[in-house]
Amino acid sequence: MTLNQMESVKLGEDRKHVVIIDQTKLPNSLEYLSIKNAQDLYEAIFELKVRGAPAIGICAAYGIYCLAQQIEAEDYDKFYSEFHRLVKYIDSSRPTAVNLSWALKRMTDVVTQNREKKIQEILELLEIESRRIHEEDIAMCRSISEYGLTLLKEGDGVLTHCNAGALATSRYGTAIGPFILGKERGLEFRVFADETRPLLQGARLTTFELDRAGVDVTLICDNMASIVMKNGWVQACFVGCDRVAANGDVANKIGTSGVAIIAKHYGIPFYVLGPTSTIDMDCKTGDDIKIELRAPEEIKEKYFCKPVAAGKIKCYNPAFDVTDHSMITGIVTEKGICRPPYTGSLAALFK
Amino acid sequence: MTLNQMESVKLGEDRKHVVIIDQTKLPNSLEYLSIKNAQDLYEAIFELKVRGAPAIGICAAYGIYCLAQQIEAEDYDKFYSEFHRLVKYIDSSRPTAVNLSWALKRMTDVVTQNREKKIQEILELLEIESRRIHEEDIAMCRSISEYGLTLLKEGDGVLTHCNAGALATSRYGTAIGPFILGKERGLEFRVFADETRPLLQGARLTTFELDRAGVDVTLICDNMASIVMKNGWVQACFVGCDRVAANGDVANKIGTSGVAIIAKHYGIPFYVLGPTSTIDMDCKTGDDIKIELRAPEEIKEKYFCKPVAAGKIKCYNPAFDVTDHSMITGIVTEKGICRPPYTGSLAALFK
Repeated sequence: MTLNQMESVKLGEDRKHVVIIDQTKLPNSLEYLSIKNAQDLYEAIFELKVRGAPAIGICAAYGIYCLAQQIEAEDYDKFYSEFHRLVKYIDSSRPTAVNLSWALKRMTDVVTQNREKKIQEILELLEIESRRIHEEDIAMCRSISEYGLTLLKEGDGVLTHCNAGALATSRYGTAIGPFILGKERGLEFRVFADETRPLLQGARLTTFELDRAGVDVTLICDNMASIVMKNGWVQACFVGCDRVAANGDVANKIGTSGVAIIAKHYGIPFYVLGPTSTIDMDCKTGDDIKIELRAPEEIKEKYFCKPVAAGKIKCYNPAFDVTDHSMITGIVTEKGICRPPYTGSLAALFK
Repeated sequence: MTLNQMESVKLGEDRKHVVIIDQTKLPNSLEYLSIKNAQDLYEAIFELKVRGAPAIGICAAYGIYCLAQQIEAEDYDKFYSEFHRLVKYIDSSRPTAVNLSWALKRMTDVVTQNREKKIQEILELLEIESRRIHEEDIAMCRSISEYGLTLLKEGDGVLTHCNAGALATSRYGTAIGPFILGKERGLEFRVFADETRPLLQGARLTTFELDRAGVDVTLICDNMASIVMKNGWVQACFVGCDRVAANGDVANKIGTSGVAIIAKHYGIPFYVLGPTSTIDMDCKTGDDIKIELRAPEEIKEKYFCKPVAAGKIKCYNPAFDVTDHSMITGIVTEKGICRPPYTGSLAALFK
């Protein structure tokens, strides 16, 4: 199985369940999970079995389609009321990534805009919409990868944080898409992957994906980004995004803002890559973005044989941080590369 | 046992072995190790069972004294030749911290300056010198803590990286000494401890020490320093040092340079605390400091239940980095606080 055949999320063949790669089990085992009910869907997202803003959106769309088929309702109002309840429940699983609520809104719009139709017809339209969200994402990733590639010269070293690859999205991925697409064209890059504590998406997922694609990758701890840049090994930083505010502030995996500040210090360009669905024009600045706080056990216990600090030790464990727009050289979308000032360049995408 | 009674290194009661706390076993168990031969001493330092630049110096001094007693030699030349061989072997265990070679040089000077004496007398002088190195360190830590305390206001939040506490030194420690000394005087601070990958000295040791001393401590992953600073929770950064160059460039635990760059970005003062024995005036700038590279397994396997990345994935694992003097607000020594320009202020310490 090549990387491009490895899909993080797909609709089951019977179209009644969602199949995901359980990303918490990687890289030690490649296990597929079948999601059939609302609680499993909630937990798959909350527990990061499926993760990466675009992949969460696709999973939620397929998931809500499958759940909608299980609704027992003869009339529209009853159907909508139960559909709405399910949407709210799934939407509450993770607060920061906009793609979750964005995908669920698209699915909800299908329901509300077709209230005159039979429920069976609405279900058919929901399937079409969920597949469209997935297909659009594949096309977007491809386009983002193409634009990203224009920012690199062959042989460049690029630092990436967390995982914005195929597992986080659909094919290619966003921030690591250019390396995979480049590899297909015979272009070599040297990627430095931050391990990305506490959940180690960089170590577990990014190195796994890049290695499978034959891309030269070196794993480092998050705190080694500074020395790697100082050594002159990095010509650009490429990261994904979970929500982009209208002014260009970017919420992404915890630690991204530190990488951006350090890159700026060393004069290294810092690019954010993501689909326009990640841009939230209703969100004026990063201050409006809600940052998810997660359990202390993720820092002290998860993945370790024994706890690395006593149970009574307090932890602060934000899942994301906000990178100020002034640290960002460009935001690469499927529609092109936005440059500062972002208030203008991002708004232009939606005209 | 209170923290101040907990000694990371001491000379055994029979004065023939060194007793250390095995820091690799903390915080899950507090185990003491008895070191009686050269190989055990080398491994204790190499494997970070004893760690922290000053503690390594003390351990090496006591260790070489114990080893010297085992030398079978009737005349000085034979004694010196074997002593010198042992010193070179121990000195090769870790390259970056200057205190190791500094302590071994002091012990060697005792031997070479007393060549006319009987070997038994030289051994007695070696014991005195090793105990002096230890006692001086206790006094230095106390003095550094006093100076450090002058930089803080009660209630301040302070971020620290790695472990520069009692375990890394003797009593009090350097970078975390001010919080312990402050606590004894009823002053409260709020400390944020970077976990410090890959060997987690912050999680395992700093939170352990501060919690025992009753100091308010919150554990964070290294990549959370930026958001913690942005939140306004940090009024200063305090870190230790392994080698300070004559121009004020500082080698310290990997990740320190990133913390300093981020602190500067947010306008937060960044202080380095360490004894003058850590200052290497023969080393003009940080470029002259040799950075120890360690095994990839420390990143991929150590402490984890299962490897977090495949065995074939490349890693870059430098144990230290160099923080440029331009990022450092002050260097706090037992003789006072040096301010930029460091070429002048550091040189003045040795006049």
